[in-house]
Amino acid sequence: MTQSLHFHFDFSSPYGYLAAERIEALAARHQRSVEWRPVLLGAVFKITGTQPLTFVPLKGDYTRRDLPRTARYHGIAFRMPAKFPIPTQAAARLVVWQRGTDPARCGPLVKALYRAYFVEDRDISDPDVAASVAAEAGLDRGTARAAIDDVTIKDALKRDVDAAIAAGVFGSPFVIVDGEPFWGLDRFDQIERWLETRGF
Amino acid sequence: MTQSLHFHFDFSSPYGYLAAERIEALAARHQRSVEWRPVLLGAVFKITGTQPLTFVPLKGDYTRRDLPRTARYHGIAFRMPAKFPIPTQAAARLVVWQRGTDPARCGPLVKALYRAYFVEDRDISDPDVAASVAAEAGLDRGTARAAIDDVTIKDALKRDVDAAIAAGVFGSPFVIVDGEPFWGLDRFDQIERWLETRGF
Repeated sequence: MTQSLHFHFDFSSPYGYLAAERIEALAARHQRSVEWRPVLLGAVFKITGTQPLTFVPLKGDYTRRDLPRTARYHGIAFRMPAKFPIPTQAAARLVVWQRGTDPARCGPLVKALYRAYFVEDRDISDPDVAASVAAEAGLDRGTARAAIDDVTIKDALKRDVDAAIAAGVFGSPFVIVDGEPFWGLDRFDQIERWLETRGF
Repeated sequence: MTQSLHFHFDFSSPYGYLAAERIEALAARHQRSVEWRPVLLGAVFKITGTQPLTFVPLKGDYTRRDLPRTARYHGIAFRMPAKFPIPTQAAARLVVWQRGTDPARCGPLVKALYRAYFVEDRDISDPDVAASVAAEAGLDRGTARAAIDDVTIKDALKRDVDAAIAAGVFGSPFVIVDGEPFWGLDRFDQIERWLETRGF
């Protein structure tokens, strides 16, 4: 069993960001790699009939309190962005493109984009901003910027989102481990045991 | 700081059941007691516009898989009841009544009712069944059965539910620790640290 952990996430998901900061260490403890699979929760919410957490009465207030507390609990830098949520196509396409060209660089790219949004409050929905962040992460800025508008990348992302929904993904983060689905950073303890014992 | 942990729950909530099996030990580790506060999620869902987890597309399938897995992870007996969800007024009124007469017996009563539903698949929405379970937990059956129809108990439960919603409760389990809200069994690790360090 050396399959990658399939890490599904949306760049506008704060819990996805926190989980992205933890998934590689978890995978490494079990000699696994991470496959980074951006999704677009807007497409998912049309199916589930749900909406961003912060929009839900009562739950929104709680989430705005739970997020910084959960970040402190895990020792991860976090600041709620001024603009939230944002469209995440540009950032997601960068990851899809990078996965096709140099998958080993996906982790640093995902974390750079997430930190730009959830620590530095930069608007990564803007393709130029997203390309700049990619450049700071060591990618060629011009190639990255072109990838965001590349129709083959756009189509590949759409297929990825459809495949994720077909696999049951409805939230972020959502990790699939050898076919077993785990929703939320809250399930990392179960993922850990699942990898130790090959199921429980 | 010797305030009770306020444990809000709905008897139709499977994660509430799992948490009820763990909250007393957590509280005891920190020299705290538990105040059992049944709520009616139906009233909450009207405000939040949400619905029972198992009714949501994709999320429902996941939940039916996550629940028995989470029960196994925690070593707690669990069986999804044939009838789900159920109205929980009868069971909730028993707890409200018991809290007013002998609060120390609330914990055993809550756990007996929850186990009747989520282990033995008994329909505790039926007042006669709920009263029988209360009797098995050591209460007087006739008095318990009468309490379910007692208008002062009915009103007290309504006030409790309103108070819970006013305090921000929107799900089950929902624990309030010295004013700090924690939603879900998934937050028990944060509650533990919160009690150790008096906030973090």
